[in-house]
Amino acid sequence: MIDRLIEKIRKTGAPIVVGLDPKLDYVPGHIQKKAFDEYGETLEGAAEAIWQYNKGIVDAVYDLIPAVKPQIAMYEQFGIPGLIAFKKTVDYCKEKDLVVIGDIKRGDIGSTSESYAIGHLGKTGVGSASFAGFDEDFATVNPYLGSDGVKPFVKVCISDNKGIFVLVKTSNPSSGEFQDRIVDGKPLYELVGEKVTEWGSECIGKNGYSAVGAVVGATYPEQGKILRKVMPKSFILVPGYGAQGGKGADLVHFFNEDGLGAIINSSRGIIAAYKQEQYASYGEAGYADASRAAVLDMKDDIEKALASV
Amino acid sequence: MIDRLIEKIRKTGAPIVVGLDPKLDYVPGHIQKKAFDEYGETLEGAAEAIWQYNKGIVDAVYDLIPAVKPQIAMYEQFGIPGLIAFKKTVDYCKEKDLVVIGDIKRGDIGSTSESYAIGHLGKTGVGSASFAGFDEDFATVNPYLGSDGVKPFVKVCISDNKGIFVLVKTSNPSSGEFQDRIVDGKPLYELVGEKVTEWGSECIGKNGYSAVGAVVGATYPEQGKILRKVMPKSFILVPGYGAQGGKGADLVHFFNEDGLGAIINSSRGIIAAYKQEQYASYGEAGYADASRAAVLDMKDDIEKALASV
Repeated sequence: MIDRLIEKIRKTGAPIVVGLDPKLDYVPGHIQKKAFDEYGETLEGAAEAIWQYNKGIVDAVYDLIPAVKPQIAMYEQFGIPGLIAFKKTVDYCKEKDLVVIGDIKRGDIGSTSESYAIGHLGKTGVGSASFAGFDEDFATVNPYLGSDGVKPFVKVCISDNKGIFVLVKTSNPSSGEFQDRIVDGKPLYELVGEKVTEWGSECIGKNGYSAVGAVVGATYPEQGKILRKVMPKSFILVPGYGAQGGKGADLVHFFNEDGLGAIINSSRGIIAAYKQEQYASYGEAGYADASRAAVLDMKDDIEKALASV
Repeated sequence: MIDRLIEKIRKTGAPIVVGLDPKLDYVPGHIQKKAFDEYGETLEGAAEAIWQYNKGIVDAVYDLIPAVKPQIAMYEQFGIPGLIAFKKTVDYCKEKDLVVIGDIKRGDIGSTSESYAIGHLGKTGVGSASFAGFDEDFATVNPYLGSDGVKPFVKVCISDNKGIFVLVKTSNPSSGEFQDRIVDGKPLYELVGEKVTEWGSECIGKNGYSAVGAVVGATYPEQGKILRKVMPKSFILVPGYGAQGGKGADLVHFFNEDGLGAIINSSRGIIAAYKQEQYASYGEAGYADASRAAVLDMKDDIEKALASV
């Protein structure tokens, strides 16, 4: 799957992932109205609204980008109807030939991580049959429980040709509280990065990158520079560009010399572009076109930053 | 909610939580057959089988225990139908007046943790209405992202009278890989424990315990002893008893001198008791009675251990 992601990045020329993290506030009034008219102001109505909103964005940008990253929390907050909208979104993006990164941040003790891994990336046995539960292409994984919480995901990456991104240095303001603490002369995130390299050593694809990648926030470019060297064969999924404050110039150190090795996520900055002054002229009705314009601008920003190195 | 948990522990005399972590392998043949006859060998069939299995166990033990802890991964592996079975289980246990601890181990950046918190413990706004997504009483939370990933859960604990258990020292073999690393002369789990005390300081209930508890594995009694002192006002949810190797005698240090402060989880050891030699005479048909016998034996084991201090 990492090779497929790389091929898609090469084809689109855009190391960009669009974060499908819908909030009801982002959904234009006419879409909300239609959903609520049909399902009422209910969880089902909210789920229908975010699904239709997602669909509009995906239809407008799918030819420009290699991948999307739906954040499952935004769906899970609407209970079962929300998770049905998540699954619909995953399936629809795959139909559109997009690589789907499930931002699920799961992680547990070994036997439980195995259930998450097969539920999101693999197949679950039922009697003599087997079924995929959510069937994303990649998932994000929390490493706090150590190797036996991560390895079941790696196993499924190998058996089902999928991939993961392990949280190493997250983009949020308080990520340093534990991740930056010094252990044996190095920050904890560096130790986790070393483990990512170890966990991924048995699943290197034909382009030289591992199925085991890492999450490092765009908001921490200095740490990105170090981690790029600690995990030379891991793709880095970089959240925090745009709305969280990361800029194009901050991103250069996340890439390897081959121009690969990183994929930059923007969520709000793309999906709610029409709410920004820069794209306000598109209006609510043109929200999806505003998202397309924002993707093109982001692509341009990253290209310029990489060209200036 | 922590006060309600304490009242239930006092009433039942059992600081015990039953982990509803069903695997299809545990479900007796007659229950599987009935579910598959009705829904086929499908995700829906599997979900029906685990729901009926859970219901049998809950009916057999609900009067003996204060709380249950469904592990959402075991349901999530069956996709949407599995999550519907999770929700049914949560609702049914609440009907039976059990405190429900959702073992969800969620945790993300601030705005995303907020969605998880309202989805599992709070209410989500939809137009002029608001709805609970999953509505557990407690949830387990992963602290790797630091304070801004945990505080949205604390906020919902206060606004909606709920509670959380933050992962501090997990029960699995590799938990030490990061959690035991020495930072400023102390293991990381101790720093996390200190944060648990801080996060929980604004939501102390009338019995003197905070709505912010901690997870510390029964498999690490020495660490439990230290953490008991670091987090004097936090309830400790203790997994790892029974099948994972924790014994009654290992548990005494997790409790405070008031005889409170800990609640011990057993999953497989209770719900799949009929598969153990000790309870084999109950047979598949008597699986729920075997679970009841295992709860009574566990209660006895803990009582003896606490009495011997």
